[in-house]
Amino acid sequence: MAEKKYDIGLMGLAVMGQNLVLNMVDHGFDVAVFNRTTSKVDDFLATPEAQAKGDKLTGAHSLAELVSKLKSPRKIMLMIKSKDAVPAPELKLYPESAAVDAVIAELIPLLDKGDVIIDGGNTQFKDTERRTKYLQALGIRYIGTGVSGGEEGARRGPSMMPGGDPEAWPLVKPIFQAISAKVGPNKDVPCCDWIGERGAGHYVKMVHNGVEYGDMQLISDAYWILKNGLGLTNKELYEVFAEWNKTELDSYLVEITRDIFTVDDPETGKPLVDLILDAAGAKGTGKWMSQLALDLGVPSTLVTEAVYARAISAMKQPRVNASAILSGPTGQYTGDRKEFIDQVKQALYASKICSYAQGFVQMQAAAKEYDWKLDCGRIALLWRGGCIIRAVFLERIKDAYDKDPNLENLLLDPYFKNAVESAQGAWRNVVKTAFELGIPVPGFATALTYFDSYRSANLPANLIQAQRDYFGAHTYLRVDKPGEGPFHTDWINVKKS
Amino acid sequence: MAEKKYDIGLMGLAVMGQNLVLNMVDHGFDVAVFNRTTSKVDDFLATPEAQAKGDKLTGAHSLAELVSKLKSPRKIMLMIKSKDAVPAPELKLYPESAAVDAVIAELIPLLDKGDVIIDGGNTQFKDTERRTKYLQALGIRYIGTGVSGGEEGARRGPSMMPGGDPEAWPLVKPIFQAISAKVGPNKDVPCCDWIGERGAGHYVKMVHNGVEYGDMQLISDAYWILKNGLGLTNKELYEVFAEWNKTELDSYLVEITRDIFTVDDPETGKPLVDLILDAAGAKGTGKWMSQLALDLGVPSTLVTEAVYARAISAMKQPRVNASAILSGPTGQYTGDRKEFIDQVKQALYASKICSYAQGFVQMQAAAKEYDWKLDCGRIALLWRGGCIIRAVFLERIKDAYDKDPNLENLLLDPYFKNAVESAQGAWRNVVKTAFELGIPVPGFATALTYFDSYRSANLPANLIQAQRDYFGAHTYLRVDKPGEGPFHTDWINVKKS
Repeated sequence: MAEKKYDIGLMGLAVMGQNLVLNMVDHGFDVAVFNRTTSKVDDFLATPEAQAKGDKLTGAHSLAELVSKLKSPRKIMLMIKSKDAVPAPELKLYPESAAVDAVIAELIPLLDKGDVIIDGGNTQFKDTERRTKYLQALGIRYIGTGVSGGEEGARRGPSMMPGGDPEAWPLVKPIFQAISAKVGPNKDVPCCDWIGERGAGHYVKMVHNGVEYGDMQLISDAYWILKNGLGLTNKELYEVFAEWNKTELDSYLVEITRDIFTVDDPETGKPLVDLILDAAGAKGTGKWMSQLALDLGVPSTLVTEAVYARAISAMKQPRVNASAILSGPTGQYTGDRKEFIDQVKQALYASKICSYAQGFVQMQAAAKEYDWKLDCGRIALLWRGGCIIRAVFLERIKDAYDKDPNLENLLLDPYFKNAVESAQGAWRNVVKTAFELGIPVPGFATALTYFDSYRSANLPANLIQAQRDYFGAHTYLRVDKPGEGPFHTDWINVKKS
Repeated sequence: MAEKKYDIGLMGLAVMGQNLVLNMVDHGFDVAVFNRTTSKVDDFLATPEAQAKGDKLTGAHSLAELVSKLKSPRKIMLMIKSKDAVPAPELKLYPESAAVDAVIAELIPLLDKGDVIIDGGNTQFKDTERRTKYLQALGIRYIGTGVSGGEEGARRGPSMMPGGDPEAWPLVKPIFQAISAKVGPNKDVPCCDWIGERGAGHYVKMVHNGVEYGDMQLISDAYWILKNGLGLTNKELYEVFAEWNKTELDSYLVEITRDIFTVDDPETGKPLVDLILDAAGAKGTGKWMSQLALDLGVPSTLVTEAVYARAISAMKQPRVNASAILSGPTGQYTGDRKEFIDQVKQALYASKICSYAQGFVQMQAAAKEYDWKLDCGRIALLWRGGCIIRAVFLERIKDAYDKDPNLENLLLDPYFKNAVESAQGAWRNVVKTAFELGIPVPGFATALTYFDSYRSANLPANLIQAQRDYFGAHTYLRVDKPGEGPFHTDWINVKKS
């Protein structure tokens, strides 16, 4: 009897990897697994959940063994962290991703032309661009896919954003779409579809994460002004977020925020959220998105302000020291409390719209720069379920791009235009109140600055251009001479009035 | 008779290069010049100004000839733009700087051990780190120096920020300090001193430029709210900036802003500033500073917001389109005009203090990361004259670091603490007014957010950590258990109240 062959192999048995494997088997696929530390293979296969899968699941103790157990064309998915493997300097671009390069180098001699390597990590898209092209030349097909939804998503249905070699897509599509989250009235639209060539999938996943930074900061802004400006208790905060989650803000992050306010520390009986140190960590995708926005020259101010806000939060001891030295306003909001809570909700919603508008603008600029064809409506749909930013709101974004696939900015879509315009009075009052009370709301404020800048036909950059031409002869263009120039003035010697 | 030998050679005869050469000769140094397009050498030497220098100045038509004309140890300064030379891929790190690598590769076989190469361009510091080490191994000494002050500064006295191989410093010090700007009561303190090893000089120059972005944005914020919130005319704006330039805001950028408002277009007779297109350009150092701040995890929000503001300004047509679709508040400030002008001045000053505080924090973090010893007071002094950001204000910064060389943040220095605290009421009112009137003030607002965040012992990042632990098991620390943890909660299954 011929040895049984498996549908897909997965290397990297941390929780995300394990859960994806179980998810695949649940959907009828036979999976072989491997891990560099091979005891993890045996440990995983010995768990009751894996045992219950019977012969749908098998282990390997080397990459070669893993490869030998797969149906052709072979599909090998990597769910590995950078510290798991030795770097291969000749392939290395971003040090964070050296582990993947090392495994790819090891896999190449084991594979045949037409086989598929899949990277499911949070990889820098430039690595995925490079690897797709490198492996294409060797006849090996490569996919870099975003996988969002955390551990729970991996187990029950993540949002997946695959990009890479288009020839690889039909080979993995049945597996990916089967295991992904489903949305739509009949819960049958998979939150997984082809994003685009080379690094497009990882880029879109990066923007997903960056938008997630924005969402989390905006929720924190709301939390902070409600707590400090109105003095809401955790119980009241629970009620506010529970209420908001029944509205256009209905989303996973608002839902878990609501629930966080209900959790007491088993040990002390105090609300757990109040015992958590206010020093936020970060894994780097928000930073990448910011750095790449700066390279593209697109104003993704929300994610960047959110990354900086985490950086300031991490300076806990310096802040404690500074707070003893630098004084500011004290006191709370004295107006109508119920009305103010509603205004905060509107500030949150309007800011969230700006944040997503920026994210989609950045993706469109990147698609132009790196030569991908992105379908923004499809991307909104993939984010509709399974992932951390899943929200009813994404339905509106999909509608907007369905109506106009070339929409320049979400704020120009009638639904969002009306939403932001009708929220703006409340939004302005919340931001003004925060600055008056000395309560930082980096997300709300930078979003409103973006809105006011974007809707300004004129900005003071004429002065900046005059200054640059004055001290550095950088030249300028003229509003009254379109198509002409650039112009330069000898500002020192020109006649002054 | 032996052939005459020259004190220093300079390659790259754009305006900056020409002016540095004339400045060197004015200070008694004999200079040989070279340019890749050799006609520029002859053209320059034929100018009346160069002719007047007699045999203090000579030309060369090849790098080899340039090298042959120099006293030993030879000193060759490069003032070249990236497009002037062919890239040398094996040395290349940042494509912008390939030209310098190509020239270095050409110079190496022409030089002896102990000779000095100087790069006076706006080079990415990582290139200077790499080149210093690379040339050190070959026995060649390398200097990467910031040169600020534009064309006028190069001619009459720039601010210079040299870093690189410490053994090279004594060799170029007499020339650099002679040609640099001078400050102090007797105008004898040179705005040029050793910054630190390898890329330290170029890093500090980059921060100088980034702080310049911040200054220009803050002045633009003031301009915009005075023009649109109060309806000031250019003549009134001239008077305001003239007045401000006699106060603690006394600076080159405020001075040229004042003068810009007096310049009429000779052709139309209209104020020139009103004819300049409001689409700001950028050369990239502000972007670099932002990207490196994000890498370091330090919150340099002012420069980043300024870079993003320029990016939004450059989207002129999209803004014009959006302005026809998205509406906002109309109307002007209705309070006391004179008082409000003074409040804008205070907002500008307080924001400027935050901007410089961030710049010095970033330099200190970089010094730690890249192993330089930076003297912050000395850097403030170098910026006191000659450069674009020269200002009386830098005297105060020098004083602060003289009093406490390890000052963690400028805002903690008594002078700046008092300045910001006494300005904050006005500052808050200006920011609130801007948001109420729909006038974007990205610099003022982000500075105030930074101030309020930094002086907050507590920030809402506890919620962010709870969310991250909820969906991604990222763990958290506890305020009641310092030194313990990290902790993780099974948020889904934990008991909720």
